Amino acid sequence: MNNDVIDSFPIGADWLQARATASPSAVALMAGGRVYTYGQLDELASRLCANLLHENLMPGDHVGLLMPNAPAAVVAVFALARLGAVLVPLNTRLTPGEVAWQLQRADCPHLLCAESLAATGREAAGERIPIHLLPVGGDAFAAWLAARPAYTTNGLPAERPPLQAIVFTSGTTGFPKGAMITYANHFWSAVGSAFKLGIRPDDRWLACLPLYHVGGLAILWRACLYGTAVILHDGFRPAAILDSLAHDGATIVSLVPTMLQRLLDAGLSAATAPALRLILLGGAAADPSLLAEAANAGLPVAVTYGLTETTSQVATMMPSDARAKPGSPGRPLLFTRVDVVDDDGRPAAANTPGEIVVSGPTVMAGYYGDAEATAAVLRDGRLHTGDAGTLDDDGDLWLLDRRGDLIVSGGENVYPAEVERVLRAHPAVAAACVVGLPHAEWGQQVAAMVVPKEQATLTETELVAHCRRELAGYKLPRHIAFVEALPLTGSGKVQRAAVAQLLAERRETA
Amino acid sequence: MNNDVIDSFPIGADWLQARATASPSAVALMAGGRVYTYGQLDELASRLCANLLHENLMPGDHVGLLMPNAPAAVVAVFALARLGAVLVPLNTRLTPGEVAWQLQRADCPHLLCAESLAATGREAAGERIPIHLLPVGGDAFAAWLAARPAYTTNGLPAERPPLQAIVFTSGTTGFPKGAMITYANHFWSAVGSAFKLGIRPDDRWLACLPLYHVGGLAILWRACLYGTAVILHDGFRPAAILDSLAHDGATIVSLVPTMLQRLLDAGLSAATAPALRLILLGGAAADPSLLAEAANAGLPVAVTYGLTETTSQVATMMPSDARAKPGSPGRPLLFTRVDVVDDDGRPAAANTPGEIVVSGPTVMAGYYGDAEATAAVLRDGRLHTGDAGTLDDDGDLWLLDRRGDLIVSGGENVYPAEVERVLRAHPAVAAACVVGLPHAEWGQQVAAMVVPKEQATLTETELVAHCRRELAGYKLPRHIAFVEALPLTGSGKVQRAAVAQLLAERRETA
Repeated sequence: MNNDVIDSFPIGADWLQARATASPSAVALMAGGRVYTYGQLDELASRLCANLLHENLMPGDHVGLLMPNAPAAVVAVFALARLGAVLVPLNTRLTPGEVAWQLQRADCPHLLCAESLAATGREAAGERIPIHLLPVGGDAFAAWLAARPAYTTNGLPAERPPLQAIVFTSGTTGFPKGAMITYANHFWSAVGSAFKLGIRPDDRWLACLPLYHVGGLAILWRACLYGTAVILHDGFRPAAILDSLAHDGATIVSLVPTMLQRLLDAGLSAATAPALRLILLGGAAADPSLLAEAANAGLPVAVTYGLTETTSQVATMMPSDARAKPGSPGRPLLFTRVDVVDDDGRPAAANTPGEIVVSGPTVMAGYYGDAEATAAVLRDGRLHTGDAGTLDDDGDLWLLDRRGDLIVSGGENVYPAEVERVLRAHPAVAAACVVGLPHAEWGQQVAAMVVPKEQATLTETELVAHCRRELAGYKLPRHIAFVEALPLTGSGKVQRAAVAQLLAERRETA
Repeated sequence: MNNDVIDSFPIGADWLQARATASPSAVALMAGGRVYTYGQLDELASRLCANLLHENLMPGDHVGLLMPNAPAAVVAVFALARLGAVLVPLNTRLTPGEVAWQLQRADCPHLLCAESLAATGREAAGERIPIHLLPVGGDAFAAWLAARPAYTTNGLPAERPPLQAIVFTSGTTGFPKGAMITYANHFWSAVGSAFKLGIRPDDRWLACLPLYHVGGLAILWRACLYGTAVILHDGFRPAAILDSLAHDGATIVSLVPTMLQRLLDAGLSAATAPALRLILLGGAAADPSLLAEAANAGLPVAVTYGLTETTSQVATMMPSDARAKPGSPGRPLLFTRVDVVDDDGRPAAANTPGEIVVSGPTVMAGYYGDAEATAAVLRDGRLHTGDAGTLDDDGDLWLLDRRGDLIVSGGENVYPAEVERVLRAHPAVAAACVVGLPHAEWGQQVAAMVVPKEQATLTETELVAHCRRELAGYKLPRHIAFVEALPLTGSGKVQRAAVAQLLAERRETA
């Protein structure tokens, strides 16, 4: 018997094709008032795949995708998979310079771009990278695709490469890093999630997280494997989400804490979301008062801890277990292992803080083209997350801190190092420290303490304008204080906690 | 990146250990009024594994298991997996001679046997094979295990062999064949089933099918992977099953048609089984009137088609899709493929009968020690089932006939060839043909047409007594007709249909 072949071949299969064969009339996607079955999605993906092949996209190519959450983006994800190309999803809030940097870093010879984002796309792609514009609004995409010649996908290799996507994540070193996510990663993530959350054949997973984040992207692959539906929203508008939860039969929704807070404020409750069986709450530590408010509203919250580098969920606490331990993401998915280690890499005792280390089949293959960054976090297949946490006596995980200085603002991760790098690049800046300040609506707000060079004149307006040329809007400092020197530790390191406290005080009195 | 390792390692993991780590306090097993959590089951399996190791069972050993459906049998299945031994489950209704034959055929150096079956086990094992007796009644097993010394499992190899079990299935050639079922088979079966039936974290799967059949055995592995519960019954007593469905919270139950009929007769309905979400109905073609009766009782029946050689389910029709096509098992599990081929092995046109051919990751690795039988059914990884069926225009499967002459009596498969071989071995028998006659309670009844040798005197009583020495009770002919010659075709083959008709007429007038 050839057990290797038996083991792994479904992981290398065309999942959408398998799903469309198994349940062609099952609902795959609800978006913009339209419903797509798996049969229809499969047909659209085939047509787009054939068109892209005709436009010289090749199996193995890394392909940038700059699109809002729209059916066209979903079709593009599956079309690229069918083509054997590697998806490089791009944050639509990035500046052209940031997009250009990521396209180059990921070695993308092509960019697929929504017509609505053509200006950014064209500037980012420049002369060097062919840009393929797709209409995405309403029925425009389907109409456009139907009007294209019916090319074939003959000649595609039977085997597809193991890599599904390169997903950029904010970098602690000042530059984003491209996490390599394989089909196997997605498969084991979907299976691990199913074995924890369960699957109902009539599940509908509401996705308002962007598809360019792993939390959104993973929803697509899960649904495809399960044969369940995705309700896709472009952006987060509480009224639209509430309306969808009330009328579209959503059974699961993935949210970050600020989203949940805004939905609660807008009236979300068990009564207004009658089909909802699970709110998967991740992306940042959840405030106990938020969890209490959700519980009072009868909402089934499953706190989860996940990372881009682990293809989303690492550990998730089901609502039925949450009462005794509100806020803990509980135990890892089956086959995923979580350790908490001390500074020497040894297992920390129960209830003793340490670094969270994750191993298992959902851990990424590495950072693309960055052996150094990969080696810094991946050792013997174990992912050193940089996040601090504890394991309690029952083996349940508690998060202490997301990677020390990580700022989570409105669901987006912002690394201080990246903003500081841009600030320091201004000719009048001598030093800068960026921190997150608590913020009622966004969870955290980006703030900066800046030391101007001697003799230099520098205004907050000028500095923000400088940053805006380099950084996506959500990364911009919303509050800047100019000081003569940063507070330092005895060993000369910046005291981030002191910076944060000073900035918070200044903001109060501003 | 080492994708091979990423792909397959969870398939080779100790699933019970992984499950007990992930959800130690989840209910694993309900049996005989007791409830076992995964933590407890894991502990029991470890203790039994250590004891077996101490008794010289070795990783890689093939180990016969002769036990009724009891917690001890469940623990034994997991203990043998932990040990790295290969389970050879034995039908408890077999004669000592049949058990001995299977032990020898499967190269078993050990037999685990329930004390209640010690007489059969001892006679089958003889002098050659060490027999290990386990008490299985009530709390006796747990008490016995607790009283044993606490041996360790130190020294077990980290890798376990890919083979989980050798499951004997009645053979068309007159002898049972041992289907080799791998962990990968079980894994993909469980995943394919989950992606079709869904999983609820609070699922409880009622198992009244014997664990020595793949339909029972697969329930254990699914539950372990999903973290859900098994409600185990020893044997099929309608009153006990009804009581359990009413009070134990069973959400799924696997039944064969005769069982469903008897439960309906005893009062089963949606009202008397309040938590039931699915009746997985397989093992034989379901009568339309039975399905209609079940539908009238509000019962959610999922017709399924499965084989030992495919680790249970091949195709399953969900109740929500069944109204339009009652009786069809629908489409295959995701990643499983069903073809219907003509006599030349070419795909048959839609709605045209042919042989059902199954491929995919749930197809067994082959028949143990029988290259010829394996080659007869497994070609290029495709399993030629011998069953006749059609695929309709939608790709839904319809079963025409289970392997021509297969008799399914009370959920047990009986191959005429095996019974005919025994009949012909009687010195006074010249020829014999065995068929199944319709039977209200058991679905089918075994009947035989026998040609005595010239001058010989032979009675039905004598012939049945002869068979009883060789064959399990459910295989015995319940009706025998003596004739001067069997009806033959022009080419000299026995006309089975004519035999069946003649026997049915004789039975009517008897």
